[in-house]
Amino acid sequence: MSVNSFGRLLRFTTWGESHGPAIGAVVDGCPPGIALSEADIQPWLDRRRPGTSRFTTQRREPDLVRILSGVFDGRTTGTPISLMIENVDQRSKDYSEVAKAYRPGHADYAYDAKYGFRDYRGGGRSSARETASRVAAGAVARAVIPGVRIRAWVEAIGGDAIDPAAFDDSAIDENPFFCPDRTAAARWEQLVDRARKAGSSLGAVVACEATGVPAGWGAPLYAKLDSELAAACMGINAVKGVEIGDGFAAAALSGEQNADPMRPGEEGPAFLANHAGGIAGGIATGQPIRLRVAFKPTSSILTPVPTINALGEAAEIATKGRHDPCVGIRGVPVVEAMVALVLADQALLHRGQTGATLTY
Amino acid sequence: MSVNSFGRLLRFTTWGESHGPAIGAVVDGCPPGIALSEADIQPWLDRRRPGTSRFTTQRREPDLVRILSGVFDGRTTGTPISLMIENVDQRSKDYSEVAKAYRPGHADYAYDAKYGFRDYRGGGRSSARETASRVAAGAVARAVIPGVRIRAWVEAIGGDAIDPAAFDDSAIDENPFFCPDRTAAARWEQLVDRARKAGSSLGAVVACEATGVPAGWGAPLYAKLDSELAAACMGINAVKGVEIGDGFAAAALSGEQNADPMRPGEEGPAFLANHAGGIAGGIATGQPIRLRVAFKPTSSILTPVPTINALGEAAEIATKGRHDPCVGIRGVPVVEAMVALVLADQALLHRGQTGATLTY
Amino acid sequence: MSVNSFGRLLRFTTWGESHGPAIGAVVDGCPPGIALSEADIQPWLDRRRPGTSRFTTQRREPDLVRILSGVFDGRTTGTPISLMIENVDQRSKDYSEVAKAYRPGHADYAYDAKYGFRDYRGGGRSSARETASRVAAGAVARAVIPGVRIRAWVEAIGGDAIDPAAFDDSAIDENPFFCPDRTAAARWEQLVDRARKAGSSLGAVVACEATGVPAGWGAPLYAKLDSELAAACMGINAVKGVEIGDGFAAAALSGEQNADPMRPGEEGPAFLANHAGGIAGGIATGQPIRLRVAFKPTSSILTPVPTINALGEAAEIATKGRHDPCVGIRGVPVVEAMVALVLADQALLHRGQTGATLTY
Amino acid sequence: MSVNSFGRLLRFTTWGESHGPAIGAVVDGCPPGIALSEADIQPWLDRRRPGTSRFTTQRREPDLVRILSGVFDGRTTGTPISLMIENVDQRSKDYSEVAKAYRPGHADYAYDAKYGFRDYRGGGRSSARETASRVAAGAVARAVIPGVRIRAWVEAIGGDAIDPAAFDDSAIDENPFFCPDRTAAARWEQLVDRARKAGSSLGAVVACEATGVPAGWGAPLYAKLDSELAAACMGINAVKGVEIGDGFAAAALSGEQNADPMRPGEEGPAFLANHAGGIAGGIATGQPIRLRVAFKPTSSILTPVPTINALGEAAEIATKGRHDPCVGIRGVPVVEAMVALVLADQALLHRGQTGATLTY
Repeated sequence: MSVNSFGRLLRFTTWGESHGPAIGAVVDGCPPGIALSEADIQPWLDRRRPGTSRFTTQRREPDLVRILSGVFDGRTTGTPISLMIENVDQRSKDYSEVAKAYRPGHADYAYDAKYGFRDYRGGGRSSARETASRVAAGAVARAVIPGVRIRAWVEAIGGDAIDPAAFDDSAIDENPFFCPDRTAAARWEQLVDRARKAGSSLGAVVACEATGVPAGWGAPLYAKLDSELAAACMGINAVKGVEIGDGFAAAALSGEQNADPMRPGEEGPAFLANHAGGIAGGIATGQPIRLRVAFKPTSSILTPVPTINALGEAAEIATKGRHDPCVGIRGVPVVEAMVALVLADQALLHRGQTGATLTY
Repeated sequence: MSVNSFGRLLRFTTWGESHGPAIGAVVDGCPPGIALSEADIQPWLDRRRPGTSRFTTQRREPDLVRILSGVFDGRTTGTPISLMIENVDQRSKDYSEVAKAYRPGHADYAYDAKYGFRDYRGGGRSSARETASRVAAGAVARAVIPGVRIRAWVEAIGGDAIDPAAFDDSAIDENPFFCPDRTAAARWEQLVDRARKAGSSLGAVVACEATGVPAGWGAPLYAKLDSELAAACMGINAVKGVEIGDGFAAAALSGEQNADPMRPGEEGPAFLANHAGGIAGGIATGQPIRLRVAFKPTSSILTPVPTINALGEAAEIATKGRHDPCVGIRGVPVVEAMVALVLADQALLHRGQTGATLTY
Repeated sequence: MSVNSFGRLLRFTTWGESHGPAIGAVVDGCPPGIALSEADIQPWLDRRRPGTSRFTTQRREPDLVRILSGVFDGRTTGTPISLMIENVDQRSKDYSEVAKAYRPGHADYAYDAKYGFRDYRGGGRSSARETASRVAAGAVARAVIPGVRIRAWVEAIGGDAIDPAAFDDSAIDENPFFCPDRTAAARWEQLVDRARKAGSSLGAVVACEATGVPAGWGAPLYAKLDSELAAACMGINAVKGVEIGDGFAAAALSGEQNADPMRPGEEGPAFLANHAGGIAGGIATGQPIRLRVAFKPTSSILTPVPTINALGEAAEIATKGRHDPCVGIRGVPVVEAMVALVLADQALLHRGQTGATLTY
Repeated sequence: MSVNSFGRLLRFTTWGESHGPAIGAVVDGCPPGIALSEADIQPWLDRRRPGTSRFTTQRREPDLVRILSGVFDGRTTGTPISLMIENVDQRSKDYSEVAKAYRPGHADYAYDAKYGFRDYRGGGRSSARETASRVAAGAVARAVIPGVRIRAWVEAIGGDAIDPAAFDDSAIDENPFFCPDRTAAARWEQLVDRARKAGSSLGAVVACEATGVPAGWGAPLYAKLDSELAAACMGINAVKGVEIGDGFAAAALSGEQNADPMRPGEEGPAFLANHAGGIAGGIATGQPIRLRVAFKPTSSILTPVPTINALGEAAEIATKGRHDPCVGIRGVPVVEAMVALVLADQALLHRGQTGATLTY
């Protein structure tokens, strides 16, 4: 079994390889009657698009999305929405090295171990290019829950973190790092440039917040909101850690410190803290949903690394293709998309079981 | 939708509340012909059983498991295995407070917000008692993959971590904390005692390692091994963070530092490091699978916390029932069980798609 | 994979063997707040209970259901409802013959071929006894859609059909055959008695009608209402055919004959015919849902049949246990239960995707 | 929820409308290393293609399939196989009538009742055109189980059945009706011509046989082979009945008549009959799988039928578009495809749970 679908009621399936003719997603289960066109999807893809600064891969992909089905007269029909993005700037010859030897940390060896062979061109199916499909599908999910605002940003690169006191939402889209701290953004220019020139790469931490999620979304026990979000984000290329709310920091706290006390509020409770990241017992409490995602450094680096080839012989590999010096940066729109998909799915699940209303 | 099932080919469904007559799990999809009896399951439940030391809840539950179906002549038949554990030591009167006001950090308010009301006795379905069902199901999963050894331990309590240099596997089962560092275990006695007596609670970090997992298990892209493990562990009560391999630490590394270089080995590659936690591209590499799980401190504490009641009025709550001062401790066998369930499921999925052999 | 779950949003999992300690079902996804007690389930089980007349198996089972979870203060909580029925009247010694040789038409050989061995006592998991779990789960489903009336009956036994003109709903529960035609019921007494005494068995056709299903339930394309109902009924023991509406008869009609013309009605259209059985394009039209189900004759007969044993040697088998001379009769409450489960599930799915209201 | 996916381990998702730019299917879970190219899929699509005789719709569609992903160096990679077929010969203006009033028997009214509006052009998603995607996906499934031969044919049109004694496999592909009886084929020319000229349509019965299915495939209880096949076929446009083996005829038999006696055979048992259609207890017995499928007459007819419009007013409708006079004829390759998908899926499931080998 290969599992290329995600979601329960709102469910999408992605397909396509880095160097094939196209990639895409089929989104099934979308409510009918929602206004949707390519113009609602393209801006999110543009945020993720490669080649927009020297801090991302230099592959030039317009990433133009086409809606092939499921929309009629400008509105969703309730039937599958097929989204396709053509691959334009493949350079498969760059990958002759990769065909022969395994890039440590990359999926090369594991795919061979699993399937017996692999499409090595650009990493094939394991390429971060697949995440464009997620972003396109995520744009549909956003349209299902317009009352929810989902916002991600980079919180640290290579161990250099933002200053929370300097957080400025309006800065996020003004620099190539999705960095909410202008000073940190300036530092990162040098940091990432240095890594890029050295043929190296850097890890990053992405944070995400979703506001407007009503209390009640989430589905105990094996689709707890924490669990669904963790699965969604841990499935993104290069992700190796997920925290909800305080995450690992909560493990160092006492019960009193970690409590989110409640007071009577205007509508429902007013919480005096949000250590839990807006989720209790797997169900949204109405507070902002907060999570953090750890991206490892890009595995494809120019620096030669000891490895073996498909025959099991010792080799060295330096990956020449065009790669992101810090794959976490372009992870920002992907995290947002996955969070949108989880929340929209849970919104429909909640409505299905309980009859709760949902406005769109 | 309420999602009380987990797994794809090997799939279990749990049921039952803390203060109902019983709890249980139905395990479906188990291969036929595997030797199985209550004696194979009970020891794992005994490790998780409450009331065995003063560092866990004082509720006295024998947690005796009965196999009600799916086993004939001492072997699994391939049909559903129904496991039941009777509840013996309920004291519902302890929960009169909980019935009236919401415990901050607990599922009380969220369940009411979702379902309109809740079984408040002992936390009902949201009680950590449910995890006994997971441990029972996990014992079946272990029998499916006998070549895999799964071992978890507590790595830190309330911010006080073990010394990795003092790690001694044989120590883990010799103290009430599943602590592999004897010196740390001695410190934790005092630490947890202090919290217990103060009516407080502590968070913890649990680490887990699975050895003997062959390269190839795992299912890209939306059932990546990282993703499945994250979903499995993040769905455990009180868990707020999951890391695979170096996790968040990897986000601070460069590509060279984070690489797991490969050399020719006896069988398959010899890896010179394991930053990736044994998983690349969502697929096992043959190295040990390594993960860490953050448990928040128990939400039910004796210290009074500001809250509201079901009418939305200001209140204070001090939870009097019998609770774990550090729920992460008993999380150790639960993490092991969930990891076993993921790996056994992936073993069958891998065999289904590729025809890989599996010995049991 | 063994698939012992059915349903999408309202989903149940059954477990248990004919001669094990108990059988049961776990119903997940039920909406919260619905009044439910054993008294709501027991009457449906009583209709299916064996040993109530000489025309069914003489096994004496009280079939008393217990609700073990998911209900609090008399209402469903939205968490899994565990239903258990103890087996009381097992006589495993009757099955020494079955242990040795395969009953043609029964699952004996197929289970051995699949799993390598089998629980032969009373047919183990393949026994019609499992259908008690379905009936219990079906009673929960009925509570989810109280506005829908589901009614099944036997239309023919051994080729002897009722006279549609003599159809009397009130007759159905007044004879041991669920026969709506009193004259046919009298004939069937003799027919079934003769088969029973001859050590033979008879096939039957069960018809079912569901009224009160609103237009819109159903989910194209791979969960069309026709398709879900067919899967649900074809999965019942001994069923070998399913028709929706006119079924095979429609294949002999012309387009004009088969049309269900529409006229303006009080609420929605008034249909002038119902060849389609209330379903168009896989979606309910608001007309009564109509289907027919073919039960083959019970495979376990006293008449000796040539067969082979587990060693592949020629043998003869005459099944001595206690069996239904016409398993289709007790299929009536089972068909009703499966139809209820499909419709309740589709009701929740429809609400989840479209926000349609549902009253219970 | 809209359910546009089918299958468990081998799973496909279809998308697209009759008059959109394209239709397609994404096949996930295919084993790796299987030789596959467009040339393996196209012949099956050609059998289903419209416009090849005057007995099918006159819409001219080349139905050329493109593989967009999942195949590398001529072999499946184990990742999703995206198949796309462009729509070429849409004539949406034909559907102005349909936009205004509901075609009785068609999905028009039901889609409006469910979704609030619909893509009326050519029936949109409910068009039989969608079945091209199934046929393409089915060709992939065939490649997974090359040892299985799946063969369907038309057994009756408008009530006029073939003579079983005249069955000639080689005749099936020599006439436009997939008719194995040359005399019947000649009669059907006139029969269908007459219906076509009269602006009418005819129903049909399609039979299907799969040989080479080993004993053991199938998955009790809720994925019984009978049940999966019924769901698969009942989900095809215009299908209203499914029989496995003797189906409804078995309901008129006695236990002795319906038994399939077994004798020692070369490999496994030799069966003396096949009333069960090769399936016992939901599991394949090794005999040929046999089933029959009832197609109602095409709902879109030129003859005017009383109906209502979207405002609920009385109207009349005569459907002018280009339609099949007997949609069952082109159902033949679709039934084969769905049977192939069920069997390939079950083959993988069986291998996953039991480790049974599978050669391809």
